[in-house]
Amino acid sequence: MHAPHATGHTGNQDDTNEFDLDGDTLREECGIFGILGQTDAAALTALGLHALQHRGQEAAGIVTFDGEQFRSERHMGLVGDHYTDAATLEKLPGKAAIGHVRYSTTGETALRNVQPLFAELSAGGIAVAHNGNFTNALKLRKEIIKDGAICQSTSDSEVVLHLIARSQKERSSDRFIDAIGQMEGGYALIALTRTKLIGARDPNGIRPLVLGDLNGSPILASETCALDIIGAKFVRDIKNGEVIICERQANGEVTIESSMPFGEKPERMCLFEYVYFARPDSIVSGRSVYNVRKNMGINLAREAKVDADVVVPIPDGGTPAAIGYAQESGIPFELGIIRNHYVGRTFIEPSQQIRAFGVKLKHSANRGQLDGKRVILVDDSVVRGTTSVKIVQMVRDAGAKEVHLCVSSPKITHSDYYGIDTPDPSKLLANQYVDHDEMCKFIGCDSLHFLSVDGLYNAVGGVERDPKNPQFTDHYFTGEYPTRLVDLEAEKGNIKQRSMLREAG
Amino acid sequence: MHAPHATGHTGNQDDTNEFDLDGDTLREECGIFGILGQTDAAALTALGLHALQHRGQEAAGIVTFDGEQFRSERHMGLVGDHYTDAATLEKLPGKAAIGHVRYSTTGETALRNVQPLFAELSAGGIAVAHNGNFTNALKLRKEIIKDGAICQSTSDSEVVLHLIARSQKERSSDRFIDAIGQMEGGYALIALTRTKLIGARDPNGIRPLVLGDLNGSPILASETCALDIIGAKFVRDIKNGEVIICERQANGEVTIESSMPFGEKPERMCLFEYVYFARPDSIVSGRSVYNVRKNMGINLAREAKVDADVVVPIPDGGTPAAIGYAQESGIPFELGIIRNHYVGRTFIEPSQQIRAFGVKLKHSANRGQLDGKRVILVDDSVVRGTTSVKIVQMVRDAGAKEVHLCVSSPKITHSDYYGIDTPDPSKLLANQYVDHDEMCKFIGCDSLHFLSVDGLYNAVGGVERDPKNPQFTDHYFTGEYPTRLVDLEAEKGNIKQRSMLREAG
Amino acid sequence: MHAPHATGHTGNQDDTNEFDLDGDTLREECGIFGILGQTDAAALTALGLHALQHRGQEAAGIVTFDGEQFRSERHMGLVGDHYTDAATLEKLPGKAAIGHVRYSTTGETALRNVQPLFAELSAGGIAVAHNGNFTNALKLRKEIIKDGAICQSTSDSEVVLHLIARSQKERSSDRFIDAIGQMEGGYALIALTRTKLIGARDPNGIRPLVLGDLNGSPILASETCALDIIGAKFVRDIKNGEVIICERQANGEVTIESSMPFGEKPERMCLFEYVYFARPDSIVSGRSVYNVRKNMGINLAREAKVDADVVVPIPDGGTPAAIGYAQESGIPFELGIIRNHYVGRTFIEPSQQIRAFGVKLKHSANRGQLDGKRVILVDDSVVRGTTSVKIVQMVRDAGAKEVHLCVSSPKITHSDYYGIDTPDPSKLLANQYVDHDEMCKFIGCDSLHFLSVDGLYNAVGGVERDPKNPQFTDHYFTGEYPTRLVDLEAEKGNIKQRSMLREAG
Amino acid sequence: MHAPHATGHTGNQDDTNEFDLDGDTLREECGIFGILGQTDAAALTALGLHALQHRGQEAAGIVTFDGEQFRSERHMGLVGDHYTDAATLEKLPGKAAIGHVRYSTTGETALRNVQPLFAELSAGGIAVAHNGNFTNALKLRKEIIKDGAICQSTSDSEVVLHLIARSQKERSSDRFIDAIGQMEGGYALIALTRTKLIGARDPNGIRPLVLGDLNGSPILASETCALDIIGAKFVRDIKNGEVIICERQANGEVTIESSMPFGEKPERMCLFEYVYFARPDSIVSGRSVYNVRKNMGINLAREAKVDADVVVPIPDGGTPAAIGYAQESGIPFELGIIRNHYVGRTFIEPSQQIRAFGVKLKHSANRGQLDGKRVILVDDSVVRGTTSVKIVQMVRDAGAKEVHLCVSSPKITHSDYYGIDTPDPSKLLANQYVDHDEMCKFIGCDSLHFLSVDGLYNAVGGVERDPKNPQFTDHYFTGEYPTRLVDLEAEKGNIKQRSMLREAG
Repeated sequence: MHAPHATGHTGNQDDTNEFDLDGDTLREECGIFGILGQTDAAALTALGLHALQHRGQEAAGIVTFDGEQFRSERHMGLVGDHYTDAATLEKLPGKAAIGHVRYSTTGETALRNVQPLFAELSAGGIAVAHNGNFTNALKLRKEIIKDGAICQSTSDSEVVLHLIARSQKERSSDRFIDAIGQMEGGYALIALTRTKLIGARDPNGIRPLVLGDLNGSPILASETCALDIIGAKFVRDIKNGEVIICERQANGEVTIESSMPFGEKPERMCLFEYVYFARPDSIVSGRSVYNVRKNMGINLAREAKVDADVVVPIPDGGTPAAIGYAQESGIPFELGIIRNHYVGRTFIEPSQQIRAFGVKLKHSANRGQLDGKRVILVDDSVVRGTTSVKIVQMVRDAGAKEVHLCVSSPKITHSDYYGIDTPDPSKLLANQYVDHDEMCKFIGCDSLHFLSVDGLYNAVGGVERDPKNPQFTDHYFTGEYPTRLVDLEAEKGNIKQRSMLREAG
Repeated sequence: MHAPHATGHTGNQDDTNEFDLDGDTLREECGIFGILGQTDAAALTALGLHALQHRGQEAAGIVTFDGEQFRSERHMGLVGDHYTDAATLEKLPGKAAIGHVRYSTTGETALRNVQPLFAELSAGGIAVAHNGNFTNALKLRKEIIKDGAICQSTSDSEVVLHLIARSQKERSSDRFIDAIGQMEGGYALIALTRTKLIGARDPNGIRPLVLGDLNGSPILASETCALDIIGAKFVRDIKNGEVIICERQANGEVTIESSMPFGEKPERMCLFEYVYFARPDSIVSGRSVYNVRKNMGINLAREAKVDADVVVPIPDGGTPAAIGYAQESGIPFELGIIRNHYVGRTFIEPSQQIRAFGVKLKHSANRGQLDGKRVILVDDSVVRGTTSVKIVQMVRDAGAKEVHLCVSSPKITHSDYYGIDTPDPSKLLANQYVDHDEMCKFIGCDSLHFLSVDGLYNAVGGVERDPKNPQFTDHYFTGEYPTRLVDLEAEKGNIKQRSMLREAG
Repeated sequence: MHAPHATGHTGNQDDTNEFDLDGDTLREECGIFGILGQTDAAALTALGLHALQHRGQEAAGIVTFDGEQFRSERHMGLVGDHYTDAATLEKLPGKAAIGHVRYSTTGETALRNVQPLFAELSAGGIAVAHNGNFTNALKLRKEIIKDGAICQSTSDSEVVLHLIARSQKERSSDRFIDAIGQMEGGYALIALTRTKLIGARDPNGIRPLVLGDLNGSPILASETCALDIIGAKFVRDIKNGEVIICERQANGEVTIESSMPFGEKPERMCLFEYVYFARPDSIVSGRSVYNVRKNMGINLAREAKVDADVVVPIPDGGTPAAIGYAQESGIPFELGIIRNHYVGRTFIEPSQQIRAFGVKLKHSANRGQLDGKRVILVDDSVVRGTTSVKIVQMVRDAGAKEVHLCVSSPKITHSDYYGIDTPDPSKLLANQYVDHDEMCKFIGCDSLHFLSVDGLYNAVGGVERDPKNPQFTDHYFTGEYPTRLVDLEAEKGNIKQRSMLREAG
Repeated sequence: MHAPHATGHTGNQDDTNEFDLDGDTLREECGIFGILGQTDAAALTALGLHALQHRGQEAAGIVTFDGEQFRSERHMGLVGDHYTDAATLEKLPGKAAIGHVRYSTTGETALRNVQPLFAELSAGGIAVAHNGNFTNALKLRKEIIKDGAICQSTSDSEVVLHLIARSQKERSSDRFIDAIGQMEGGYALIALTRTKLIGARDPNGIRPLVLGDLNGSPILASETCALDIIGAKFVRDIKNGEVIICERQANGEVTIESSMPFGEKPERMCLFEYVYFARPDSIVSGRSVYNVRKNMGINLAREAKVDADVVVPIPDGGTPAAIGYAQESGIPFELGIIRNHYVGRTFIEPSQQIRAFGVKLKHSANRGQLDGKRVILVDDSVVRGTTSVKIVQMVRDAGAKEVHLCVSSPKITHSDYYGIDTPDPSKLLANQYVDHDEMCKFIGCDSLHFLSVDGLYNAVGGVERDPKNPQFTDHYFTGEYPTRLVDLEAEKGNIKQRSMLREAG
């Protein structure tokens, strides 16, 4: 199953780019937020999206409904770049809003793909935003285009919109259920109609979605940190396979209705939400992400005993695990690597001469804590290993006597198809170096350690992996996918172009 | 039939705005241009659109096909603001392109409405741009939305796209004919597929469209001035009701095929193209627009004999008629009013105090030719009369002894529904003042003259109007519409909102 | 005296640029406007500068004084691009303002050169704006730099500021007189202090300056059209060599004081103001510019009798003279060339292929009035002749049987040093072709005619040129300069770089 | 000596702003960087300034010399916003460059104040950039304006430029020494002439400046982190009172010459560089900033023994001290507060309703490490206390049983006059609450602890403060200023307006 991923291999992960500012990480595609029944719904949504910015930095959009009309603002760039002034928010009146931040994976960064997307229905309008990926979106897209539909974007969400528009059901919520019943994959979805805020999570619960409450107004958000920023209360996680319908009744009251239209089964939350994506202060499926990450460091210290002078996190992802590792091992925790807070996402494409100087835009060595020391570096994950090579070298250049790289998650061997941007599997470090010593030599460290799959399961859920019924989504480590991969099989792993139109603005 | 027009009464024509820079004119909605088979097709299209800028200044878009992919750039603003640099044109590679300039009439100036619009068909893509208006677009829009279609814009063109996508025909050109067969109104349409440039004019030929040729590559354009700017040859007018299909064959040759799928009948070109819209250097249906306008002035001098010292055009629209008037009457032609060339479309919204000074942003009086003289002012048309009042006053303030306003077209009494932006009929000067003397008094002139309908027909076509089979479209003067008005009747003249979504960007 | 001009030969007049949108004209450097004692002084100044936009399109600046502080806004671009919104004008409070539009001649388009310039004096601040050129600015600049002054711009105005700052006089108006007493050249200057609006014209009166009045508030402006736009009254021309001091007294009253500190002598107004620069509706030194230009056409018709079918102006400069020519000759006046109103100052730098098509961005032929006809083209002036060549060819391509070019001013043979941007003299048509027939052949016309110097003098002043005491500044035609040329002689005609600093923004 | 500071109290520190994103910190005004003799000098300078961005985020400027001309780019905003593309850097050719980042303290954010500033000298040009503040700049400014100089900016650096320009010395380096000999205060200065890169530190060495080397090319920079980012070697600190002249000789060789024109005395480096300003990975005066801050935490743990469950840093300033405190006390270090990495400097000005929700844009509580715990919060400094109040409340809201605030620096009681932006002394927490218990009550914590002055001295230099000859600049804690305060005394503490001109752009 090492065929190229439908949406996975983008140019930004080109491993020859010395100036790769995002580093060697996987990327979440999206974050979503919706609220029903509050004045300033757009401003609250902008704040919620700001708290979810780590889930997608390329574009942000908000749709509101003001009682008569839907209003939309969609912009490339950060939430803070476009939704911070009164003038913009005044264009988004209304007490109901949904919003979306995304990191693009399709290579086309056009505004037409920025969510939420909107459709006029004969019974009214509907706006939809989603986080995740549908594994049969291409098949459905082809079918509806053949049937005379016009697709304006290359986004999976538009397929959902078309299925809703084409549904024979009467009520918009039934149309919504009708539509997602045809979709497969991993997703969290929110929709806004004239009276309803609707949410749904995929049957496996791969992508997260939580229910919050602000003075009686329901909120749906990807993570609890989006509730915290506006002082909203966390109510509960949306269940895997659940559809939740918040509705503003004629009397102004807001009712919440839940259904499980496709039955119940155990949740299989994506492990990478714990390893990397979710913010450390979020509570995901009842677990503090920070504490889970500390547990990973603790388990790693138990599995990988290294004699050293300092434990140094690779900021910021490795910090909680490094604290756990340091506490468990008794070796002091020190900030041996400093991160530059002003790194944007682009910088000077340097001349060959400047490249040769070994410019360090994102990280710098804190020589005082590295010189002459045996250093344990803790990182959350290693994808292609390119950044690790550079950081190990930087630490050695700062005088470290030994450098040991401890990774608080297992080796990544398989692509994701549920909304995580993964490089071509052949570029993954774990597939390039089967021999552990060679991998270690490539990285340039004195020893190299990965947390075991069971160690990770234990850190998250307290028990080992159940091979018959794995408690989590873990195919990137194990190759066991929780769903069929319809498009990938149909296209023989060769999905390049979704639309014949390429549009800049 | 004086109900408000579906798309006709916009806020910009608010007659209380002292700073109305566009003046008291009607507005054409659009200009279109397409070319097949030339390197730099996008640059040529940008130049063609630049020559058509007078037909629409609000937004401009270009779609190209590069052999594999369609590319699109769409921007609010003038052609010269966005399509002048190599960087933008490099995003539009390919030897085939269509483009569009528009003046918005719907009140929503969103980018999503900027043409050309594009649809993925199962057999390939198609881009469409149009000039004009469909009188049954709303009815069709409702039907296809009810049938599950998703409309992303509020543009009539999108309805055409949906009808093409839904057509059961195989060939894109047949689908195109299928679609326009369902549309009513006045329009010129161009479409671009992977191999074809398609054009069509409505059965009455209300809106113009010409065929040109640049080194063997066919061009379709609203006016001949768009051919002249790039040195292309004028071939012929597209006939009313004609569909023309230019196709790039496998051997690289370009074939041109014409059909009259809905039969033949006499053309009824819109008279306002001659009166105001078309550029004076264009040849419309075989007639030099400049010469036609001079004829109007000549006929006006015959109909309205005024004893005066100078003939002064209201620039720039009234200039050719003023030259004709002066030559016929023997009274000297002088530039008694100077136009400021640097007037943009917005300027300081002045304080009440400054308004009181009587600021003249667009026109100024050339006192040396007005002071102490009996002045004949020649204008092309009068819509609400608001600008005329100000100009007559300005001329008097400059010392004119007498001011006679001669208008080289008849009184406007009815709304247009074929792509011309008309104010609410109740605001038309001719409907506000039935009594000619009162109208003259309102304008403030010593005498007021309009060209007769027969005088206009004679100036354009050489003969009087045939009341049984009018040779031109002339409802704004006569109330006789050349087609049914389906939407207007269905909505009882009350069409306000086309979409539930309002989007700024 | 054909040495290269200090500030005269810029790259934009490169005669190889097929896309030279400004055409083959000379350029005025600047327009100035000031007002004392009106609420909304900045808005009124913006309107005045808008009316003077033809004198300089590259940049515009306004300085106000609000009773406590001077405020400044300076921007590259048109007045209408930057001073049209309430937000900008609110940053410019106060009842006193001066403003400036400029066309750059030094090749450096930096913001730091945009006027008005400002200096802190120990007794208060002073802002200065000027139109014209000082012929000894470089010499003075070197002296004050040697003496420890810091020059921030490359503008002549800054030298004036330094001389004011260094003056030993007490009163700012005396300092002003002290400073301009050291300057030579052709200029109109305005200055704003805490209480005064000061104006001055050079001893010859080469550049124009008029005094206006708006409800008791004095205005100084380059041309009367800047008074007309705001409904202000024209009071009188500032005399050559006059210094006028408008002062707001403690009781709120505004006094006006005039002096002739350098004595009196006859005015020698620049003839090019009449030929090309001033707006046709302006009154310059008591003469209607439009009427003077018509006179030039009349005199030209008398001097150059041509048998032809139509008189066609090259718009817009040639129009008044063409009307005069037509009236005098009895040959009909027709708009045979149409000007595109949407030409900005930049457009697509076309590929070689597109250049070959002979793109016509600015002018187009009105074939209906040219085909088969003997055409007299009337232009206001010919500088290098490059545009004339193209227009004659365009008119021939449109079918003209004969093309006669009649120029309503004499041959230009010498550079200007008083604020007009002239190309290197060797590039002037009149210097490249001494033989008239060869010149005619180069232009491609059947005959070529220039107005005589006496014909021009007669058109402007009613009498011939007095060779002993020429009534106007006319060195571009005659080589007789009204002043010394200090810098030019000192630098042996080789003045390239004024500052060691080059700054983009 | 509690008079308002000349440049110290800006509106951004308004303590009523709930959305104060920069928090309750002091601000450094500037960072500087220069390099002589490297191709791509501008790109290297941009990278160096990027590493110094923490010293000033409001504006950045670079001046280069290309052998013939100086070039300048100056922009409001971050280095990464304006100096990242090839197009900008191509405008800055040359092998010599100096650059500057600044945080504005004067309240006027005009471009004209952005450094480096430039002056033409008769012997050539000179560009100057500085970090710090001159305590007699206003006095000198008044003198030179009285003497006829024109000041274009309100920056202290311009005074230096004028003194250089007015110096009677021949060589630019002697003029430089002549000029700084007249200045008093705390500063690091760099200058660029046609052949030289010059640097200087004030006699007390209050502001830092280091010498680096990149392949034989000398570099001057505020901190060593600017050397690290481009892989340059650290050579040594510039000494207090030293002037260093790097010169490119005719043979291409670069010589370095050092002098102590004003004699030698012990250095008194500003303690706040260690407490807050310098980056933790910088080496300042031979000391690792990170290690010094850890020492502060260790000393604080010894001085302030608190029984608690977790040590939580207030990120990012408090982190090194918190690690030191945790190691010394044995209480676990945990990230109980998470910082949002996407906080820009502006965000939605929220409505009253949203304010009431207690929005947390910058920090959020990590409930899993706070709930039910006794928490020690470690911060680097407390200025007005406003942020502390909010953070303590946030930690309590997250369930903390006890909250103890430990500050790793002494109480701030006095204004700075050497380049640090300090609020009005009356707003300082330490001056508002003399009683420690009341201060603790205001903050809302269970106990409140500040590091003693001796504890700080010990952490930085290893020994206690010598009251007779303090080893560091420490007036903010002690009131003992290292220099005279000329301007402040002359103006009686009331310096509001430096220039009569206010300019936006």
